[in-house]
Amino acid sequence: MTSNLQKWSAECLGTFWLTFGGCGSAVLAAAFPEVGIGLLGVSLAFGLTVLTGAYAFGPISGGHFNPAVSVGLTVAGRFKASDLPGYIIAQVLGAIVAAGLLYLIASGKAGAQVTDLATNGFGEHSPGKFSMLAALLTEVVLTAVFLLVILGSTTKKAAVGFAGMSIGLCLTLIHLISIPVTNTSVNPARSTGPALFGPSIALEQLWLFWLAPIVGAVIGALIHRALLRGDED
Amino acid sequence: MTSNLQKWSAECLGTFWLTFGGCGSAVLAAAFPEVGIGLLGVSLAFGLTVLTGAYAFGPISGGHFNPAVSVGLTVAGRFKASDLPGYIIAQVLGAIVAAGLLYLIASGKAGAQVTDLATNGFGEHSPGKFSMLAALLTEVVLTAVFLLVILGSTTKKAAVGFAGMSIGLCLTLIHLISIPVTNTSVNPARSTGPALFGPSIALEQLWLFWLAPIVGAVIGALIHRALLRGDED
Amino acid sequence: MTSNLQKWSAECLGTFWLTFGGCGSAVLAAAFPEVGIGLLGVSLAFGLTVLTGAYAFGPISGGHFNPAVSVGLTVAGRFKASDLPGYIIAQVLGAIVAAGLLYLIASGKAGAQVTDLATNGFGEHSPGKFSMLAALLTEVVLTAVFLLVILGSTTKKAAVGFAGMSIGLCLTLIHLISIPVTNTSVNPARSTGPALFGPSIALEQLWLFWLAPIVGAVIGALIHRALLRGDED
Amino acid sequence: MTSNLQKWSAECLGTFWLTFGGCGSAVLAAAFPEVGIGLLGVSLAFGLTVLTGAYAFGPISGGHFNPAVSVGLTVAGRFKASDLPGYIIAQVLGAIVAAGLLYLIASGKAGAQVTDLATNGFGEHSPGKFSMLAALLTEVVLTAVFLLVILGSTTKKAAVGFAGMSIGLCLTLIHLISIPVTNTSVNPARSTGPALFGPSIALEQLWLFWLAPIVGAVIGALIHRALLRGDED
Repeated sequence: MTSNLQKWSAECLGTFWLTFGGCGSAVLAAAFPEVGIGLLGVSLAFGLTVLTGAYAFGPISGGHFNPAVSVGLTVAGRFKASDLPGYIIAQVLGAIVAAGLLYLIASGKAGAQVTDLATNGFGEHSPGKFSMLAALLTEVVLTAVFLLVILGSTTKKAAVGFAGMSIGLCLTLIHLISIPVTNTSVNPARSTGPALFGPSIALEQLWLFWLAPIVGAVIGALIHRALLRGDED
Repeated sequence: MTSNLQKWSAECLGTFWLTFGGCGSAVLAAAFPEVGIGLLGVSLAFGLTVLTGAYAFGPISGGHFNPAVSVGLTVAGRFKASDLPGYIIAQVLGAIVAAGLLYLIASGKAGAQVTDLATNGFGEHSPGKFSMLAALLTEVVLTAVFLLVILGSTTKKAAVGFAGMSIGLCLTLIHLISIPVTNTSVNPARSTGPALFGPSIALEQLWLFWLAPIVGAVIGALIHRALLRGDED
Repeated sequence: MTSNLQKWSAECLGTFWLTFGGCGSAVLAAAFPEVGIGLLGVSLAFGLTVLTGAYAFGPISGGHFNPAVSVGLTVAGRFKASDLPGYIIAQVLGAIVAAGLLYLIASGKAGAQVTDLATNGFGEHSPGKFSMLAALLTEVVLTAVFLLVILGSTTKKAAVGFAGMSIGLCLTLIHLISIPVTNTSVNPARSTGPALFGPSIALEQLWLFWLAPIVGAVIGALIHRALLRGDED
Repeated sequence: MTSNLQKWSAECLGTFWLTFGGCGSAVLAAAFPEVGIGLLGVSLAFGLTVLTGAYAFGPISGGHFNPAVSVGLTVAGRFKASDLPGYIIAQVLGAIVAAGLLYLIASGKAGAQVTDLATNGFGEHSPGKFSMLAALLTEVVLTAVFLLVILGSTTKKAAVGFAGMSIGLCLTLIHLISIPVTNTSVNPARSTGPALFGPSIALEQLWLFWLAPIVGAVIGALIHRALLRGDED
């Protein structure tokens, strides 16, 4: 029997890993001179945090690592609403610890001035200077599809073991599309951790990265239910 | 029991995802300064739309997301010809909506003039200025092999769960080879959506990206049948 | 019951795909200006030809696509020596057709002068100017490990369905290491096709790319047998 | 019945492959002019050595290829302490042979002066000039999560066959984050082989790449036990 403390610990560790690994690759390795991993490497890193976290922590907590995912699963009838607060607090905590550790490591580089830990943003804070509307649309649509992939990969009929692959690689795909737009969130916890250590504009814009992913997750969950209505999901 | 409306919705959503994710990564992220994902990232993105779409929508509609695939499956005896019109209309609709949304988001970039949404082409409209014959050969051959991989990965004897991986990664491979030639179609719906929002030459050349993939798909399906003749497929 | 003609056709098609896809990505897309896929993309392409070919053609012929693999499987007791000639002829034929088609497509580029279809070489014909000894060592060692991975992934105890993934990705890894040394062969058929359309030095050096992979494959098969001796493989 | 000699041989070969493939890709291909694979390609190569090695050698020895992993598995109660010395010696031997072979091949490049075989380091020997503290933190944290993924992917309840994928791709992720910091070790054997052929500073700093990964592995194993306490792991 897995205790609540164990579940919260797993969510905290998994979201720590997502934020530390994803943002860490962006901060430390993306723009390394001549051989840097670029946005492709960062996209792969974010996806692999979820892929590996799913195998490490999924059996304990279900492997959400993302408040929007927890909300979407609730709407889809796969998660109890009463368990939401504990999960979301654990996720945000994990992301904050990850950002703090990343700040510490990044500061250990000779001559480094750490000013941004891969925070999310729009308008002047968007990597490619995309408007608030473009950011909102992008985050809503991508989170909606993310939930469709998560819910589709974890139905009872789905082939066992592949969910970690498809869900993790879906997050890679989402980043391949949208890093230039918002630096890619689809995950309020991942946005919150770095924002606390970043420039003030990241905190000011944080509301969008709670609102849009959660709206998108709800939409995705509702579409999933409509697609499977009449089927014994 | 899955209704026709549910199947069409799944095909529409899946083709939306293929077009939005694949063309979106190309338009938004491929040439991002210094850290852009390049043709490798775009190839990965296209493949992952199918990989993830297969897990999200495959159980509902079979996960074609491509009129040429639907035609090939019909020739191979795996899909009813009477279901073709509904599927193809749903696929094209999904691709058009995806191109429209991508146009909207891309227009949200400060100072952006969106002139091309990763349309397909040959001759002067080929990324590498390849001739019509080269384009035709490339699209026919690659779609034929694509069908061989799709049909081979989904026989009754195939290991359960791997089809989404092999088929998605096959689309990645196809893009790794042929983006410079035609910007890679092998999918008439994916070609149609962006062409409606692109330069007029894209619409003028659209016929090739319906003809060649469908011819290739039929060839692939016929080879598959010959290879398995006498076997209880 | 699968006929010999069907098996030979599958081997021919699979080796066609390996050569066309792998060398095609190298010739057409590797050095595309600014967004080219580079050696990383070529490595991925070669691996994915085998990964996808394994699912498309593996159930018919076993999915060798490589004379050295066929020889190694024979030494390991998994393939009949009397079937070697038919398989090897089919493989070489497939690679030649692939190189011819690739030559045709590459010639369709405006202003193109096709002089090399990703041929293998050493010394002055090595991409990084590596000596014959370095080339020999590299090809022998890498083919030996390739056979160990192939044989290990296909024992009766191995988890079903993963062999295509591990073997394909092993070929990707082999290319990540050794393209600068020999342009990577580990496959005499893949070396032969392009050499017929390439500069004369490619044909003069072709002997090494038959000798080294086959020696390596035999070594790998013998190590595999020693590692499993006493076990009911 | 697999003999000790067979197990040691498998560990030796697997760690040879990890070191030869990972460091080989870094030394030979990472900075190849214009089309080099970069840190992304090296990250993929390291991960694929473990992914492929797991399928080739895992059934024989368990597929550790890393003294820190063997220690972590012991702490987690999955490996006998009395088997540690044989495994660790075999692993270090494999890494030394790999470094020697790589030195030989790299020296075969016309005009080459081989001065560093992808050794690990911190401070002035860190690729990005990260401090000893940053290096220590990074190696401890990443090895801890590595063990959590290894242990989580190999519980009795885990889906069969996926462990090689998740563990290999976890090593890719670890490299995507940390090559700029320490050139990424998380594996004392992989650090030792190249250090013997590298600059003297690599040997002087080798202690950290034994200490930090082993400490991290122990921490990871203890967290895993706490997370699963009460569950019939």
